[in-house]
Amino acid sequence: MSTILPYSDEYFMRQALAEAALAYEAGEVPIGAVVVCRGQIIARAHNEVERLSDPTAHAEVLAVTAATEYMGSKFLPDCQLYVTVEPCVMCAGALFWARLGEIIYGAGEEKFGYRHYAPDLFPRRAKIRGGLLADEARELMQRFFVARR
Amino acid sequence: MSTILPYSDEYFMRQALAEAALAYEAGEVPIGAVVVCRGQIIARAHNEVERLSDPTAHAEVLAVTAATEYMGSKFLPDCQLYVTVEPCVMCAGALFWARLGEIIYGAGEEKFGYRHYAPDLFPRRAKIRGGLLADEARELMQRFFVARR
Repeated sequence: MSTILPYSDEYFMRQALAEAALAYEAGEVPIGAVVVCRGQIIARAHNEVERLSDPTAHAEVLAVTAATEYMGSKFLPDCQLYVTVEPCVMCAGALFWARLGEIIYGAGEEKFGYRHYAPDLFPRRAKIRGGLLADEARELMQRFFVARR
Repeated sequence: MSTILPYSDEYFMRQALAEAALAYEAGEVPIGAVVVCRGQIIARAHNEVERLSDPTAHAEVLAVTAATEYMGSKFLPDCQLYVTVEPCVMCAGALFWARLGEIIYGAGEEKFGYRHYAPDLFPRRAKIRGGLLADEARELMQRFFVARR
């Protein structure tokens, strides 16, 4: 009998979007991430650059640090990372070093996304998908930046 | 009367090399960094990936986090970062976001250096220099990796 997994890709991305909403409410660039291992969320994070005055405190970096702490390992080959917006170069580098099993992002990011600067960072066999609930992630980002103009 | 600065580029890189030596002794990939602001070292760090089981704990990321904490600002436009080895993509991204005024590295890193993956990350006017005390940084790296083969 196969195990029925109660949670879907969409469920996990909605959890990442909930993190992004927390960032929005805190006045941070609204990006959220969760790390999932064997169907269980082991880390949740959102952008905290302003609160920490730390330009490295992006959702993905904080999520990787929390997930590796939880796993007691510096590598996460059996984990998926869900993030609401395409990772920047810094975050893509963090996911590269952490050897994430799979990366699923929502909205593409034309200006600061890693694909623009480092399109060949990940090996071709790497499991990376974009576009999951992209509209919701993009709408949150646009609302944030429009409000600050 | 102009201020006489007692410390040179070489002095600061030797401080980064001293951090790299600490990493070596701790069984970490021997890379060290210091952040300098107006002639004063405001942050020192070395690779702590093994100790923290955190793949994001590279010298440059730790140095930027410490320096921004010290400055109470997420940007470091008046600072120089000295690092013994060419930054990887993740660290180059961190330096990009932190808006480092100047980046000075020692040994080039052909396999994992940012120039290989993201050569256009920094604007052309960015002040980035490589090669300072490169032989000493490279020798330490080679000694480390030869010992682990």
